[in-house]
Amino acid sequence: MDKNVYCVIMAGGGGARLWPKSRWSKPKQFLDIFGTGKSFIRLTYERFAKLVPTENFMVVTNVQYKDMVLEHIPELDESQVLCEPVGRNTAPCICYAAYSLRKRNPEAKMIVTPSDHMIMQEEEFREIISELLDFITGHNVLMTVGLTPSRPETGYGYIQKSDNNKISRVKCFTEKPNLELAQTFVQCGEFFWNSGIFIWKVKDIISAVAKYLPEHHALFSSIDDAYGTMREKEAIEQVFSVCRAISIDYGVMEKADNVYVRCGDFGWSDVGTWGSLYLLAHKDKYANAKPDDRCFTYDTRNCIISLPKEKVAVISGLREFIVVDTEDILMICPRSEEQNIRKYIDEVKFHMGDKHQ
Amino acid sequence: MDKNVYCVIMAGGGGARLWPKSRWSKPKQFLDIFGTGKSFIRLTYERFAKLVPTENFMVVTNVQYKDMVLEHIPELDESQVLCEPVGRNTAPCICYAAYSLRKRNPEAKMIVTPSDHMIMQEEEFREIISELLDFITGHNVLMTVGLTPSRPETGYGYIQKSDNNKISRVKCFTEKPNLELAQTFVQCGEFFWNSGIFIWKVKDIISAVAKYLPEHHALFSSIDDAYGTMREKEAIEQVFSVCRAISIDYGVMEKADNVYVRCGDFGWSDVGTWGSLYLLAHKDKYANAKPDDRCFTYDTRNCIISLPKEKVAVISGLREFIVVDTEDILMICPRSEEQNIRKYIDEVKFHMGDKHQ
Repeated sequence: MDKNVYCVIMAGGGGARLWPKSRWSKPKQFLDIFGTGKSFIRLTYERFAKLVPTENFMVVTNVQYKDMVLEHIPELDESQVLCEPVGRNTAPCICYAAYSLRKRNPEAKMIVTPSDHMIMQEEEFREIISELLDFITGHNVLMTVGLTPSRPETGYGYIQKSDNNKISRVKCFTEKPNLELAQTFVQCGEFFWNSGIFIWKVKDIISAVAKYLPEHHALFSSIDDAYGTMREKEAIEQVFSVCRAISIDYGVMEKADNVYVRCGDFGWSDVGTWGSLYLLAHKDKYANAKPDDRCFTYDTRNCIISLPKEKVAVISGLREFIVVDTEDILMICPRSEEQNIRKYIDEVKFHMGDKHQ
Repeated sequence: MDKNVYCVIMAGGGGARLWPKSRWSKPKQFLDIFGTGKSFIRLTYERFAKLVPTENFMVVTNVQYKDMVLEHIPELDESQVLCEPVGRNTAPCICYAAYSLRKRNPEAKMIVTPSDHMIMQEEEFREIISELLDFITGHNVLMTVGLTPSRPETGYGYIQKSDNNKISRVKCFTEKPNLELAQTFVQCGEFFWNSGIFIWKVKDIISAVAKYLPEHHALFSSIDDAYGTMREKEAIEQVFSVCRAISIDYGVMEKADNVYVRCGDFGWSDVGTWGSLYLLAHKDKYANAKPDDRCFTYDTRNCIISLPKEKVAVISGLREFIVVDTEDILMICPRSEEQNIRKYIDEVKFHMGDKHQ
């Protein structure tokens, strides 16, 4: 394994996706939603552990999840978990990892990955990552991994490529298009879903941040002598308290002229919605995704049903519903209304306080 | 208070009604379904405690519920709880109470009442009971209390009166008529719902049992010297092991010629179904009966929603549904399908064993 290759796992998500199964107190990356015995973050670690030495992993997360990260990936040393005092979107998260990594190894190559996605065909995926690690050795580029879109999803970002090479320069990014535009994108063949997986040399991403996010560059450079010391925590708290929240896509990738995309097709899903989970799940003959052994359905079709361990359910007369039961929250809503979950979270929070978040 | 008046509370029900809120492990009579702080059996005891001396109460129940009865009515002595080794319907239950009571006080007057009904206007109710206790002093009759039917309920028994006196001889009993017949009954004005509340002298019910259920009479008479002694438990076990299961209505009331009914109108409900509970419950402006403070509904109408303490629910897009969540079972079904609950119980029992009963 190349000792210059590092894997940065972004694990700061706060639990709005797949609510009420995921919560602020236990967000999606720590859930074992398919009952495989392994959480999303654990699977993410194992996926890259065949390419990256254990000591070269870094997990960036909210300080509140530090212990949970170490519990799910006990292979890591405490120093490998970078704690954000508050979430400031992906650009500050990546800056923290990149600037502290530069101090440790200026020749570092970085893989950046979300912690809560699913990849079914890991061998194919790792081949692509290896290929891209080779590619960035000889090219000063910011690589993204794109996915061939299988449906006109309006919740994702799309990447347009500029030519037909396997590794192609990016022409344009489009965040969350409307349905009509998404349909055009899918038909056209030039557009890919943005996986949120990036590969670059640490010096290339820092050059890009310096150019497109100069405030962030100034802030994260200014504490260079604190990285890896006792003063890091305090310095980072100060930086995060003033740095602007912005995504790496919007702040850097959409503006830089050296962004490339490599499209892949390796059974990816962000499992970010109950709808996407429904697509992936095993379904019974009435197209219900449910725990087979303790969920009894009558006249019920095309539903996704999630229950706490050992709970029994009897469900009759539902069509295309999401039923998610947890220890403290029960949610029942039509699959077509899933976009309202954010509203439900806010209403529960408004009336009940933070207890159920 | 008349020292010859006794109140027999029948509390042997096994939890099929209002399932999954009620269970074999905690049947309906022990539930506080309206959140008043008092269970049905507690309310039943308090309702009659203004007419009957504490020491004249008897509760007949399954041996498994003995401790629960004493917990809900701590005023009672252990000897006042008659334990059935197995349920054999109401005739053996009433025989046990009547024959053991005869030994203690041959002049006893008995009020027999279910333990899991609701009565909203207790003063009016007690006036009727007092009037009937007076009436049976001078008449050797079996009194029942009837209710003016408010809807063509097909799940109840109906009593037809033979004249227009306040206390009228019963012409006929009809168990669970079909809808057409029930509609005729309601329109005709001669029919009343059978409340399952009976008032009689102990010697009159025993005469009737001797005549119409001679086997039961022989069995319960044969252990006369065991009542109130150390041998009672063993003797009763033997009697119950051989005696035929039969209801008092079918075994005695439908056959005897000295049955009278006094109709009343005192806010009665057997709360035997989620539908009847829905009728009684406070409803929001969308006609949902639900815990106001922690059940958030959207586009949801005419539903009844029951949640465990402190549980939060978010429910969207349901019409006329029953949603009952408990610690170990979740049930969602259309209100029109409530008659299937018995089937659900059987299926859960078949697959999961008795754990969830």
